[in-house]
Amino acid sequence: MDFSKPPEKRTPVFVTEVGTRDGFQAEERFIDTAVKAGIIDAMIAAGVRHIEATSFVSPRAVPQLADAQDLLSRLTRRRQAHIAALVPNARGAERALGAGVDEAVCFVSASETHNQTNLNTSMDGSLANVAEVAKIVRGKVKMRGAVACAFGCPFEGEVPVEAAMRVIDGYASLGFDALTLGDTTGMATPRTVTQLVEAVQRRHPALPIALHFHNTRGVGLANVMVGLDLGIREFESSIAGLGGCPFAPGATGNICTEDLVYLLEESGFDTGIDLSALIEVARHVETVVGRPLPGQVMKAGPRLSRHSQEDARRAVG
Amino acid sequence: MDFSKPPEKRTPVFVTEVGTRDGFQAEERFIDTAVKAGIIDAMIAAGVRHIEATSFVSPRAVPQLADAQDLLSRLTRRRQAHIAALVPNARGAERALGAGVDEAVCFVSASETHNQTNLNTSMDGSLANVAEVAKIVRGKVKMRGAVACAFGCPFEGEVPVEAAMRVIDGYASLGFDALTLGDTTGMATPRTVTQLVEAVQRRHPALPIALHFHNTRGVGLANVMVGLDLGIREFESSIAGLGGCPFAPGATGNICTEDLVYLLEESGFDTGIDLSALIEVARHVETVVGRPLPGQVMKAGPRLSRHSQEDARRAVG
Repeated sequence: MDFSKPPEKRTPVFVTEVGTRDGFQAEERFIDTAVKAGIIDAMIAAGVRHIEATSFVSPRAVPQLADAQDLLSRLTRRRQAHIAALVPNARGAERALGAGVDEAVCFVSASETHNQTNLNTSMDGSLANVAEVAKIVRGKVKMRGAVACAFGCPFEGEVPVEAAMRVIDGYASLGFDALTLGDTTGMATPRTVTQLVEAVQRRHPALPIALHFHNTRGVGLANVMVGLDLGIREFESSIAGLGGCPFAPGATGNICTEDLVYLLEESGFDTGIDLSALIEVARHVETVVGRPLPGQVMKAGPRLSRHSQEDARRAVG
Repeated sequence: MDFSKPPEKRTPVFVTEVGTRDGFQAEERFIDTAVKAGIIDAMIAAGVRHIEATSFVSPRAVPQLADAQDLLSRLTRRRQAHIAALVPNARGAERALGAGVDEAVCFVSASETHNQTNLNTSMDGSLANVAEVAKIVRGKVKMRGAVACAFGCPFEGEVPVEAAMRVIDGYASLGFDALTLGDTTGMATPRTVTQLVEAVQRRHPALPIALHFHNTRGVGLANVMVGLDLGIREFESSIAGLGGCPFAPGATGNICTEDLVYLLEESGFDTGIDLSALIEVARHVETVVGRPLPGQVMKAGPRLSRHSQEDARRAVG
């Protein structure tokens, strides 16, 4: 790849922010709706144009996201961005349409055990729910099909390409517009990313693919490089690296948005996002959750932040 | 690249461990020599074959590494690995030869300001020191020339390829056997790595290059993917991610050895290292320094560590 293209020749890459959904659903305490809305508006102001803002899941199942409708109604910059939300069932689909989302995201796991544990039904049961959702939202909003555990399952281990493809074929036959391959517990590697992405590209060449990586084993951004090389131009990430892994205390969750933007911009791609403004949002999110988050660029600053020799003497002394 | 080669077709990649040098020199307290030796021996037992163990710098300048000679004499598995050490001057060269190192590593910064701040002399002054060291060690041990701030300088910002090349040309003219391009404060990106590595490969095609990345801005392993694609087959890293950045409290330092080994093995390369054994060493190093270190694989476990559904209920509940 040519990583040093001049600005006018840069290829656009879409960064989809999922922190207020995938990140905040993993927080123990409920984050105030106005605070969530402020974070999303600040990200839109920084140039983020794709946001998976929340989930229209049952408020009993995920109380952290019980404010889905209220949250969307509070966004002041909503028209400047494409707002997606998770939609688990017909009831959620009606609520999501009522709230005016631009995109409904359905999800099914590529692992039977994970689907059962996480969604309390079989993969076939989930695909039947997806068909119901599709019936309600088709032609009204964009439909994205997400595959959880696409690169491995914490219960079953290796997930065969065929298992993910069964879910993807289901989405394709229901007329979904786009796919997300989700690395739910951070098991994706260059090998598994290449195998699955190439298989999907061969079988469904017209379906755009987004990659959703977690950095649980430190290789999330290395996988992004592999995805770029495979022609992927959409990645999902979480501001400040919000999110975690339920099985590994201390392990990181989603790849971090501002680190991803830094990497993409430094690899000759155009995200349309103002990195400095995004870093400010990330630092604010860290104060909101009240603990250090995994994002690195927000700690070290952009690449060319200068230090004085006086700084150096202080740092060493 | 083909990331899913069968074991017998895998390309070897050399991982050089620098934690007891680059990591421990940044620790405030002195780590006991026997503890250091135990860590190095355990890494050799896990299959690590290249170790930059210490520095023969003045004990007054870096008291953390004052035990260089004693450390090497205590290694029980020393003959099973290639032991390198930093050698800043003629005095250090004599000490290193006396201690029986296999490789002397010299270093000069590609930034005049950084060289002056870090080594108290100009780049030309450092190159003159390097010539003196070369005179002493040439023909006796392998000579490696390291370039600090090769991808950017915290004081000067962007470092031109020509500045790094001036140092590299100096090493080449003195008969050095190998180069290390060092990302001293985590400023390397796909763009800068490609520009410098391609320039060095064109100008000095016979000189093997190792890449030494820091993860200060989260993109260390993404840069490794870029290096692999450029044909680089040697990387330097630090067990558990030991090390830090003097300018950015909370930012990570060197890329983490066990995360690097995990990435390489999952990308179709052969490191010869037993990941599980290495993870045990990383966890031990974390107890030695007494604080959480950045390594991710040691927290999450290898990719196929299985969890029970009971684990999931506990994690969620």
